[in-house]
Amino acid sequence: MKIIIVGATGTIGKVVCEELSKRHEVIKASRSKGDMQVNIESPKSIESLFKHVGNFDAVVSTTGEGYFGPLKPATDKDFRKGIDSKLMGQINLVLIGQHYINAKGSFTLTSGILAEDPVVQGSNLSMANGGINSFVIAASIELQNDVRVNAVSPGVVEDSPGYFPYFPGHIPVVMDNVVAAYVRSVEGAVTGKIIKVF
Amino acid sequence: MKIIIVGATGTIGKVVCEELSKRHEVIKASRSKGDMQVNIESPKSIESLFKHVGNFDAVVSTTGEGYFGPLKPATDKDFRKGIDSKLMGQINLVLIGQHYINAKGSFTLTSGILAEDPVVQGSNLSMANGGINSFVIAASIELQNDVRVNAVSPGVVEDSPGYFPYFPGHIPVVMDNVVAAYVRSVEGAVTGKIIKVF
Repeated sequence: MKIIIVGATGTIGKVVCEELSKRHEVIKASRSKGDMQVNIESPKSIESLFKHVGNFDAVVSTTGEGYFGPLKPATDKDFRKGIDSKLMGQINLVLIGQHYINAKGSFTLTSGILAEDPVVQGSNLSMANGGINSFVIAASIELQNDVRVNAVSPGVVEDSPGYFPYFPGHIPVVMDNVVAAYVRSVEGAVTGKIIKVF
Repeated sequence: MKIIIVGATGTIGKVVCEELSKRHEVIKASRSKGDMQVNIESPKSIESLFKHVGNFDAVVSTTGEGYFGPLKPATDKDFRKGIDSKLMGQINLVLIGQHYINAKGSFTLTSGILAEDPVVQGSNLSMANGGINSFVIAASIELQNDVRVNAVSPGVVEDSPGYFPYFPGHIPVVMDNVVAAYVRSVEGAVTGKIIKVF
């Protein structure tokens, strides 16, 4: 398969690239490095990425940012970070990519445990993750040509110790298990699934 | 209690107003009618509403729009309808309202069955509903002064037969049960709950 990985240089993305590269042609996309540059906050940039790559069989997104901070001072502007990046950035990969992806292809987005198990300062990311999960469920019943869409929802990952203080009592999840979830989505046959890793 | 109902003239809103008016002071807000006008897509308009009302004990939102249409032609612009109205419009009621609401007050937002049980053409509303549900869970652990937040998630309501063709096999939910969910949120003590009516 020919697989575009968006967020290829991130903590999760680089390990997913390593694993999928063993069996597939992987195109690494990220904001400023990799084989291709893309700014997921710009629909034009996403369209340009897909046009340049041409035919492909899978898009894996391991990217997306949000406001991580307290609810009390949070404004509409703060929340637009998670809206424009993690939520609509990833959704636009599907809305636009559906017109370029090969039949029987797949989209794999990334949500996260905060959709259902919140932490203090995480409300914008909870919102984005919940939106991604419900979008995936809905989009899966409309995508055509047997194209699939799933979300991987990881807990805090063992490779990101900087986040541990913000996830008190959360048991960090094993990176191998996170990578396996992406493999299950890309190489498996499920669609409309939230693949939880926590 | 002094309760602001945003979306007071809508199908659900007007019945919620009737019920809550029996025991509380209700301020009806909507885009163009009611006691107060508010455009939930504008943070400034929301701030103005709360400033004018002054002290209040509860905000009930029975409003919020989105793109209802097929996934294939959907664009970023289409999806921004659900983002700006149903998702961020309702979230901004909380982000801004938290600075005006009385201690022990409550926010009640509206999501819907599409968060977990999709229908064709509903992907934008699924996304908005899923985002609302996860936001409510997260915001509930950060709101101060014993302020609460919940979401009512109704199925297709018996009073909206125009939607029935888009919800094949869905059994319309009884309006009395929907209204009861809002009462449970406002007059009860729960927080961070998705009160499902389907």
